[in-house]
Amino acid sequence: MGRGGSDYSASIFGAALNADEIEIWTDVDGVMSADPRKVKKAFPQARLTYEEAMELSHFGAKVIFPPTMQPALEKRIPIRIRNTVNPGFEGTLIHCAPDSGSSPARSRPTVATGISSIEKISLVRVEGSGMVGVAGIAMRLFGAIAQAQINIILITQASSEHTICLAVRPEDAPTVKSLVEDEFALEIQAKLINDALVEDGFSIVSVVGENMRSSPGTAGRVFSALGKNGVNVAAIAQGSSELNISAVVPQGDEVKALNALHEEFFFPDNKLINMFLVGTGLIGGALIKQLQAHYKKLKECYAHEVRLIGVANSRRMLVSEEGLPPEDCLALLEQSGEPCNIDSLLKQFRALNLPNSILVDCTASEDLAKRYEEILKSSISIVTPNKKAQSGALDYYTRIKRAASHRGAVLLFETSVGAGLPVLSTLNDLIKSGDEIVRIEAVLSGTLSFIFNSFGPEQSFSGVVQNARAAGYTEPDPRDDLNGLDVARKILILARESGFKLELSDVEVENLVPEPCRLAPSADEFLTKLKDFDGHFDELRRRAEEQNAKLCYIASLEHGRARVALQSITADHPFFGLSGSDNIISFTTKRYHTRPLVVRGPGAGAEVTAAGVFADLIRIAG
Amino acid sequence: MGRGGSDYSASIFGAALNADEIEIWTDVDGVMSADPRKVKKAFPQARLTYEEAMELSHFGAKVIFPPTMQPALEKRIPIRIRNTVNPGFEGTLIHCAPDSGSSPARSRPTVATGISSIEKISLVRVEGSGMVGVAGIAMRLFGAIAQAQINIILITQASSEHTICLAVRPEDAPTVKSLVEDEFALEIQAKLINDALVEDGFSIVSVVGENMRSSPGTAGRVFSALGKNGVNVAAIAQGSSELNISAVVPQGDEVKALNALHEEFFFPDNKLINMFLVGTGLIGGALIKQLQAHYKKLKECYAHEVRLIGVANSRRMLVSEEGLPPEDCLALLEQSGEPCNIDSLLKQFRALNLPNSILVDCTASEDLAKRYEEILKSSISIVTPNKKAQSGALDYYTRIKRAASHRGAVLLFETSVGAGLPVLSTLNDLIKSGDEIVRIEAVLSGTLSFIFNSFGPEQSFSGVVQNARAAGYTEPDPRDDLNGLDVARKILILARESGFKLELSDVEVENLVPEPCRLAPSADEFLTKLKDFDGHFDELRRRAEEQNAKLCYIASLEHGRARVALQSITADHPFFGLSGSDNIISFTTKRYHTRPLVVRGPGAGAEVTAAGVFADLIRIAG
Repeated sequence: MGRGGSDYSASIFGAALNADEIEIWTDVDGVMSADPRKVKKAFPQARLTYEEAMELSHFGAKVIFPPTMQPALEKRIPIRIRNTVNPGFEGTLIHCAPDSGSSPARSRPTVATGISSIEKISLVRVEGSGMVGVAGIAMRLFGAIAQAQINIILITQASSEHTICLAVRPEDAPTVKSLVEDEFALEIQAKLINDALVEDGFSIVSVVGENMRSSPGTAGRVFSALGKNGVNVAAIAQGSSELNISAVVPQGDEVKALNALHEEFFFPDNKLINMFLVGTGLIGGALIKQLQAHYKKLKECYAHEVRLIGVANSRRMLVSEEGLPPEDCLALLEQSGEPCNIDSLLKQFRALNLPNSILVDCTASEDLAKRYEEILKSSISIVTPNKKAQSGALDYYTRIKRAASHRGAVLLFETSVGAGLPVLSTLNDLIKSGDEIVRIEAVLSGTLSFIFNSFGPEQSFSGVVQNARAAGYTEPDPRDDLNGLDVARKILILARESGFKLELSDVEVENLVPEPCRLAPSADEFLTKLKDFDGHFDELRRRAEEQNAKLCYIASLEHGRARVALQSITADHPFFGLSGSDNIISFTTKRYHTRPLVVRGPGAGAEVTAAGVFADLIRIAG
Repeated sequence: MGRGGSDYSASIFGAALNADEIEIWTDVDGVMSADPRKVKKAFPQARLTYEEAMELSHFGAKVIFPPTMQPALEKRIPIRIRNTVNPGFEGTLIHCAPDSGSSPARSRPTVATGISSIEKISLVRVEGSGMVGVAGIAMRLFGAIAQAQINIILITQASSEHTICLAVRPEDAPTVKSLVEDEFALEIQAKLINDALVEDGFSIVSVVGENMRSSPGTAGRVFSALGKNGVNVAAIAQGSSELNISAVVPQGDEVKALNALHEEFFFPDNKLINMFLVGTGLIGGALIKQLQAHYKKLKECYAHEVRLIGVANSRRMLVSEEGLPPEDCLALLEQSGEPCNIDSLLKQFRALNLPNSILVDCTASEDLAKRYEEILKSSISIVTPNKKAQSGALDYYTRIKRAASHRGAVLLFETSVGAGLPVLSTLNDLIKSGDEIVRIEAVLSGTLSFIFNSFGPEQSFSGVVQNARAAGYTEPDPRDDLNGLDVARKILILARESGFKLELSDVEVENLVPEPCRLAPSADEFLTKLKDFDGHFDELRRRAEEQNAKLCYIASLEHGRARVALQSITADHPFFGLSGSDNIISFTTKRYHTRPLVVRGPGAGAEVTAAGVFADLIRIAG
């Protein structure tokens, strides 16, 4: 195992020769797509070419260590690796002609046949201005090293000729350093070459496959998969055979890199999402149910795998790298969850260091929102219906938007305005396509929509509020709806996404809670007090009806000015037909000037909000 | 210039020494971000470190050829490259400490300080099973080569140790081959090592920068930029200094690669789109106007640069790699356009071989639609309001969707249903997030919407159609609207995007053109004949009104069954309030079950359709 943990070393029990192929009996199922101890989804490959087998032999099963293959190679006789313990299994066929490879995920051939790694290596870097354009440096370098019979695992010299970088076993590094420095003593003295630099603590991950040759963008896939997951690449090598792309990465990232690459190449359409859910209330709960209900279909039809690697609420948190079963996660959280605080939560999430990590914030927590910037910067994406960050201080909004624009991490909060309705995405398309917002008008509170849609002569205003509350349509204290603050936050988000630099204090809000009711110590006392103002609201309603108008609590953005106010609208207004608790958002733009673009539908409720969060999740998976 | 065309070689006119920095006077403005002859947007760098300068010196201005820098390097004295012809200009400062780099596009530091290339190189590949785990091979290899004093430009040996790949000047390749084969004659005979393989016709492109070290994902950016543009990478090297990532690419792709990388690193937020517009009718014309009007703002505010590299209509085509001025492109097309046919058009577009190429199909051409698959396969994306391909044979629809799912190319046709309204994107979010379509109901023809919204007792049906036609709301022959085929195509697209495998013939269509009118030889004769059926339509209208209903031509999808029919709807139906020529699309899903998600607005018209095309363009730019 001198090659490090990557060897799931197998023993050979003998080779049986038959007419058309050599059978090699071992205690493994064949050549695996990756080290099963590091990549859970590793599977045995059905077919490999000699060349691929040789590339992989460097790491994986020693059964195909080249010498074993020599005779067969010459006669071009196929070799079959079989498992004595599992004789029924076909194992791996090592043949001559390049093959389409295999992939459980899709029929079209995969470009890679194996992802392998060397767990521990050191890098030795030799550089200096004196190396440029000077022939023979390489010879002297490798000559010096060869004296000590040291194996060089990887060599790269970028086109500048000004650095040559070698990967060797950690135990060899000091020898290599001194050999090099002896060889180039004079040049070093003359400052033409610097002392050899040794860096420890690296691993090499390699993607192997015959078909890589004919697939443009393979390297792009390798390094985006690594980059997306914040894996820094210290050195790279790919020979023109394009049979193998190797990347030197920090040892701590080896397993993450292997899994990211295994997903990328063997389950290319399978977008694995590692989701950490914070908040197990109504929305979080609904999301878990949807995840449970659609997990299978999502995987089969759209090849999206959403793995619930953590769940937390204000009291407890539970983390599992394998993923928690959605159906039991809440029970498990109660039983075996540990006490939760944001610091330890983020610490553990980061420690997992998993590809495609997404934090789903289904809380209304200000504290968590304050951490978005640092979360995004650590390559963890965020999906949230929580309005706090986007509607907080303008400076912070700008900072998180910038942090999110850094490659890798994404911040999506479509559900913070109009729940699952396509509001922010539509706005973004308009703006980006060079359209100009003339006016946004919107009913953004399902509660107030319901209240004013059901407020009529037959019922007092306080009565309507009372019923809405009883039906669970309002916040525990209806004043949290009636004060318009929630709507103000939403129009502020729309304004900012439209490009206006506004603070929450810039939004004019008509607070529907009558002055004297605001100090009422409890919700019940408030509702009692509200009765005194039924006349006032009746009067408003009557006056509206006299002009065949109806009352509507509308948020608007015009000339960069954001307002939230109770208005009376007539039949020609697009919101006149609004009913139930629907939200409606109307975009009047330079291009949609005579008739606006309107989106309408349920803008609240755990089910549709969770669905919108789900859609954002999938959008990130791409 | 032995190094090939990459040298914008400069001459040194002398070095002036002053207290704190050495000034080197040349005939260039300093060290450029790239070879200005190959990258139009190349700009002089304000600051470079010694190391960066050395990396770049390998290619660019010889003013910083290392020997020149030696003395300064030792004393750590900054060097300033200045231009005698442009003495006012500050030039490039070469200093010791790593720097934040510079970028005209944004304030945050760039990771790269230069993109350079070597135009002509050959690859020599030495491989064989006998090389694995055998020490000293490298020494013998480089020893042999060194005899001939040959410069090795790039070396890579992937971790398998089973291939060593060298880049050398083409003229040196044969020598290297024979030297290697002499050295390893015995191993070659013993089949332990194969004959050295020489491959010509390659270039090396390199990205250089101190900050690359500290930026995860840099390699990902390099190779995605190349991969996205269909540039195949033959060999890769990056030393652990991470100061330089080099990729060996086909010589024909050198300039494309340089530009793609220059955009990626110096204008990272600047998404350059190379757009080829086919079809200069109403929509194409509007798109050109929008492009012209918003070009500047788009670039400044959203850093999207849409370059119109080609424009064509059924008669003429005009191509310009520099980009055509939108305001004049139609005039230019008439004056200097060459005769156009689809083959030559696609041939020229492919020949340009530009990054982020997008074909915008604003025609209704069946022939062009038939070419989508091959276009997508050559890494060219497609944006189109043209329905032909998506609503053609199911097999072809499946094939283009698959071709588009290949990395690099994208196919967007949001505007083929509901013009600029967010219909297909919304549907996609619903489906992907695991929601299930229960029912889609939609009014998808602005023309028919207008006709039935204005059809009342005061006017005969044929009269309404007559007026609609006079107002330009209908096709030249209104039967092309009334036969419902266009609507059928749209609901078919919605059905397919919902996952139902339907053919156009599976859609039940109620043709509103009365049987006897269908054969009328001209549109006018049809309108005359239609009068005979005013009674029939009046009757339908009256019957509807008796039940307080109104007529509405609705496309629907339910239980995988697509229908287009004239229905009478009552006030409780969400479409009852529809007015003008608006489209409306209502999604009833498992999650939006009690109340549907509704999108409404103008679903036709050149302006909003072009805007939707624009949005799709930007969406591809990302």
